[in-house]
Amino acid sequence: MEIIDVFPLLSGIVALISASLLAYYVKKKPAGTEKMKEISSYIYKGALTFLNEEYKIISVFVIVVAVLLLILSRFTDIPWQTSIAFLVGALFSALAGNIGMRIATTANARAAEASKEGIQKGLTIAFSSGAVMGLSVVGLGIVGLSIFYLIYGIDSANILFGFGFGASSIALFARVGGGIYTKSADVGADLVGKVEAGIPEDDPRNPAVIADNVGDNVGDVAGMGADLFESYVDSIISGMSLGIILSFSYGHVYPLLIAALGIVSSIAAMIFVKAKNPYTALRNGLFGSAIIFAILSALLTYWLLKDMSPYYAILAGLVDGIIIGLSTEYFTSHQRRPARIIAEASQTGAATNILEGMSVGMFSTLIPIISTAVAMVIAYEFANFYGVALAAVGMLSTLGMSLATDCYGPVADNAAGISEMADLGEEIRRRTEELDAVGNTTAAMGKGFAIGSAAITALALIFTFVSKVNQLNLRADIALTNPYLVAGLFIGAMLPFIFSALTLGAVGRTAERMVNEVRRQFRELKILEGKGKPDYESCIRIATRGALREMVLPSLLAVIVPVIVGIWRIEALIGLLAGATATGFLLAIFLANAGGAWDNAKKYIEEGHLGGKGSDAHKAAVIGDTVGDPCKDTSGPSLNILIKLMSIVSLVFLPLFASLHL
Amino acid sequence: MEIIDVFPLLSGIVALISASLLAYYVKKKPAGTEKMKEISSYIYKGALTFLNEEYKIISVFVIVVAVLLLILSRFTDIPWQTSIAFLVGALFSALAGNIGMRIATTANARAAEASKEGIQKGLTIAFSSGAVMGLSVVGLGIVGLSIFYLIYGIDSANILFGFGFGASSIALFARVGGGIYTKSADVGADLVGKVEAGIPEDDPRNPAVIADNVGDNVGDVAGMGADLFESYVDSIISGMSLGIILSFSYGHVYPLLIAALGIVSSIAAMIFVKAKNPYTALRNGLFGSAIIFAILSALLTYWLLKDMSPYYAILAGLVDGIIIGLSTEYFTSHQRRPARIIAEASQTGAATNILEGMSVGMFSTLIPIISTAVAMVIAYEFANFYGVALAAVGMLSTLGMSLATDCYGPVADNAAGISEMADLGEEIRRRTEELDAVGNTTAAMGKGFAIGSAAITALALIFTFVSKVNQLNLRADIALTNPYLVAGLFIGAMLPFIFSALTLGAVGRTAERMVNEVRRQFRELKILEGKGKPDYESCIRIATRGALREMVLPSLLAVIVPVIVGIWRIEALIGLLAGATATGFLLAIFLANAGGAWDNAKKYIEEGHLGGKGSDAHKAAVIGDTVGDPCKDTSGPSLNILIKLMSIVSLVFLPLFASLHL
Repeated sequence: MEIIDVFPLLSGIVALISASLLAYYVKKKPAGTEKMKEISSYIYKGALTFLNEEYKIISVFVIVVAVLLLILSRFTDIPWQTSIAFLVGALFSALAGNIGMRIATTANARAAEASKEGIQKGLTIAFSSGAVMGLSVVGLGIVGLSIFYLIYGIDSANILFGFGFGASSIALFARVGGGIYTKSADVGADLVGKVEAGIPEDDPRNPAVIADNVGDNVGDVAGMGADLFESYVDSIISGMSLGIILSFSYGHVYPLLIAALGIVSSIAAMIFVKAKNPYTALRNGLFGSAIIFAILSALLTYWLLKDMSPYYAILAGLVDGIIIGLSTEYFTSHQRRPARIIAEASQTGAATNILEGMSVGMFSTLIPIISTAVAMVIAYEFANFYGVALAAVGMLSTLGMSLATDCYGPVADNAAGISEMADLGEEIRRRTEELDAVGNTTAAMGKGFAIGSAAITALALIFTFVSKVNQLNLRADIALTNPYLVAGLFIGAMLPFIFSALTLGAVGRTAERMVNEVRRQFRELKILEGKGKPDYESCIRIATRGALREMVLPSLLAVIVPVIVGIWRIEALIGLLAGATATGFLLAIFLANAGGAWDNAKKYIEEGHLGGKGSDAHKAAVIGDTVGDPCKDTSGPSLNILIKLMSIVSLVFLPLFASLHL
Repeated sequence: MEIIDVFPLLSGIVALISASLLAYYVKKKPAGTEKMKEISSYIYKGALTFLNEEYKIISVFVIVVAVLLLILSRFTDIPWQTSIAFLVGALFSALAGNIGMRIATTANARAAEASKEGIQKGLTIAFSSGAVMGLSVVGLGIVGLSIFYLIYGIDSANILFGFGFGASSIALFARVGGGIYTKSADVGADLVGKVEAGIPEDDPRNPAVIADNVGDNVGDVAGMGADLFESYVDSIISGMSLGIILSFSYGHVYPLLIAALGIVSSIAAMIFVKAKNPYTALRNGLFGSAIIFAILSALLTYWLLKDMSPYYAILAGLVDGIIIGLSTEYFTSHQRRPARIIAEASQTGAATNILEGMSVGMFSTLIPIISTAVAMVIAYEFANFYGVALAAVGMLSTLGMSLATDCYGPVADNAAGISEMADLGEEIRRRTEELDAVGNTTAAMGKGFAIGSAAITALALIFTFVSKVNQLNLRADIALTNPYLVAGLFIGAMLPFIFSALTLGAVGRTAERMVNEVRRQFRELKILEGKGKPDYESCIRIATRGALREMVLPSLLAVIVPVIVGIWRIEALIGLLAGATATGFLLAIFLANAGGAWDNAKKYIEEGHLGGKGSDAHKAAVIGDTVGDPCKDTSGPSLNILIKLMSIVSLVFLPLFASLHL
């Protein structure tokens, strides 16, 4: 064993230690008044209740799959350690989500309290808690991968597909279940509270308000974290695997080393997260980490390989990620043309608002798709399929930093909510809202980044799958003239539509139950008349139960369909994966950006343009925003998981397919 | 020359003679009161104005392309006759559209007048005028193809790609331009008339009402006709071409013969279009023609080939078409669950209405995609790629009948409009509205059918393209592992999104101009106060100009992109075509069915459910309907053309690509 073999593990340990120190720093801070503590503890408990309930269902699924893998390992070439890796992957992903949720729901009141001393203090708390999540994800990810690598060496590549599958499973439930939870709470709270009763957002009299705040954490912290944990480990695993299959020099460990440098760069760049303007601070952190990483990985590549080709593939991915982030920012920001066009279309009513939003969302696919196609071709030219995997690793390398800025968002959002609910006064509210506004921008960029990384990771996994198929001499005819492959392509392309139909419908159904409950409480408890107190917990229960019930069908679909198709025909499965990745990518961008743009068109009007709050244009824009909510926070993000999960499931079960088709 | 070589031409001539007789029959009927004649002549003139303006722009495009093809034929292996075939294809398609528009706008008042004697009389007029269109399309289509076939024999297959390209060009402008026209007029008329001024639909005081009625003809007659003319000839051309390349017995003429039998079956089945209930009458015609065709083509196949394999491929396509039609009917009908769920969701507002509609539309992709994938695989198993082309021919064989039922719709719609505008009284209005309601159902089924036939035709064209590439020994690596092909696939999959973004945006912009003009007329001319008369022509001008201006960019995109990509790399082009076909198919179904379901959810409420007209649920449903309008009538149908056009363009320019890549 060389020192470089241990370096990834060390970097992971450093990440986890840094996360602990930051968590300690955040927890030490004062949590404010009793009222603030009370609200924060409601959110904290609500979040943990949901997580615990969710884990119960997931553990059934995880245990069944683990046993199944163990049984299959007796009859096929699936290594028995796959089952163990699957369990560890699921456990680590759940652990990262749990840590992130705990710190985020701990930090919200503290960020609001710190804002009393100034906006920068608030920023520091919120960002630090985001960094705890970011570093936990990359730390646990690389530690998990390294342990298997150190024990099994080159053989670990095959075993680790199980690790990726475990991570995917958690991500699936977190994104789908979390997405349904957050948006049914949000839509329910808004439709009755804001629209019907006319009380402001985050008004403590609204019984769904705590569920809504819990939802922000469930969706944007635990969901986003699990999503990117999956992309992160999957990209590294496909890189290791392809490096070995295609016999690249140091191919088995180079992707791990690159990821380790990314961790170092992320930690180092955290000192840049300081500026008068919170947006500038976060942007400095993001670009700082990318630049440090680009330099360090160039040096490592030159020192280790003497051949810079793989490095250019990494760079292609890194640049692609930045382009996608900027494109997302352009298409969703309330300071840019697209959101303003939607705002203007609101003047002729909700219908034109919706149509313009759909048009913007569809058009916004242009740059990410072309950029990713170009990055893929460049990466391939430099290092074949291995290059495509490295592009994914490169894009995700500085995840410690980018996830920190993502998870900053919901903390700032909650902080603003607490300021409102605990009556901290106009000035504090303004400060936390400014933090929140920046959070919305970084969240939109984060979403684009999550989609892009999912797409390129899925591509890397597909190429890994095809390479393994060739290695096994399965002789599948994967020409685009094979009608089975084309049939698979069509059905694969359809799956994201079906998946989105299910998740959109799920939000609708759960939100309807929430609406009825909130209406009931207003009516029976006479809350608005100042007589009764809202029953937060029954709303939390509705969101929790709805999310858990509704997440099962789409989740099982995502796991079972590729297995069935693979048992039928390998070519059809390859077509299926390619089709699903293409439309999954497109539909995810469309839904996320249309949703973001609708949201910010409304914000633009609320700033006082086109008649401002209460105008007809505003009412139309509120409808657009409500349509956009589940698009951008439930259906869109769930597609990220769908495309990665189906590919990793195919890889895990490939030995089974091989035993049937050889 | 054998007798079977002449039979297709003869069947085409019979179709054209039948169309002439039916047209004479319709024209002979009385057109009603002076008022009715006046309104009808407004619509007639408005429609022809638009067509003439459109033809001016199209002729520039057609002449430029024809000259370009002639020049290219000097330097590449593109036969010089391609240019001639291109001109004839464009001319015949335009002619069919022109005939259809003239008869439809002639028949509308006559159908209203005939309804005075009974609903069945009205049905006969409206259906007969639809049959004129249907028979003109198939008659001109097969006559055009036959002439080239009789002159050039087997060589005609290559030349006829030009014919298909010509037909595609007209279809492109007709669908895109016509779609923008019809929906900007419709949305404009509704937003100001129905929503703002509170006057009923088709109220003659609304200045946009004539433009709206013209639009129905422009979109649903000329647009639909050109779309299906293209599918019809393209499927036959690809069948002839693949039959020759793959050396099937009688492969060069069998597709033409099958099409000829379809014409005979369509004409024969027209006697079945009689029943108390208009819906039953039309359905009898559709199923009758399919059954006659199935029998006749079985006999022909047995007599001519002694091998039934190609017949099963045809049958697969025929059944696929029926399944798609029925699935569309289910997902859009106001008597079925999906539309009702949307109606119920309207009770919690426009946002939930929109979300539920999106969910229904996305889910409705399931059956058409799986059915088409299965049909393709079956057809391939029986007769290779040739089978796929035959499946398309089979699906489109009875187009004479199915297009007759499609074009019946706008005539009935106009008849209902004229009854309202000319004050024909409650009873006549009720009868024409019943005819219109049936027309809505057949129109929805027709849309599904048009999409399905476009998808399978595009597939047949892609397989033709790949077969030609192999024949030319271009040795393109079309494995799904070729990153250039995957890049092409991604970019191709993106094009329908961009195309839809442009067309949705175009409707929005033109509708906005229309809204402002109608508001201006109401204000300045004091129409609602009974003082001034509406200026219909200025609204017609706005719709015409808007449509013509906005159709150019998306149209050029569809033609130029495949040529550029083909010049770059053949593999990328093949990926592009496959990706565009997959998402084009999906997005077209999503947009068409969501739009149809929104429309009928509104109708369901208007029937008196959930509070009926004027309720909050109804207001929400009107918003959904307005969103759905351009989805189902502009963007969705335009995608049919996009996917076919890009494939036929690729086939026409293949010799150019070959000369660059060999």
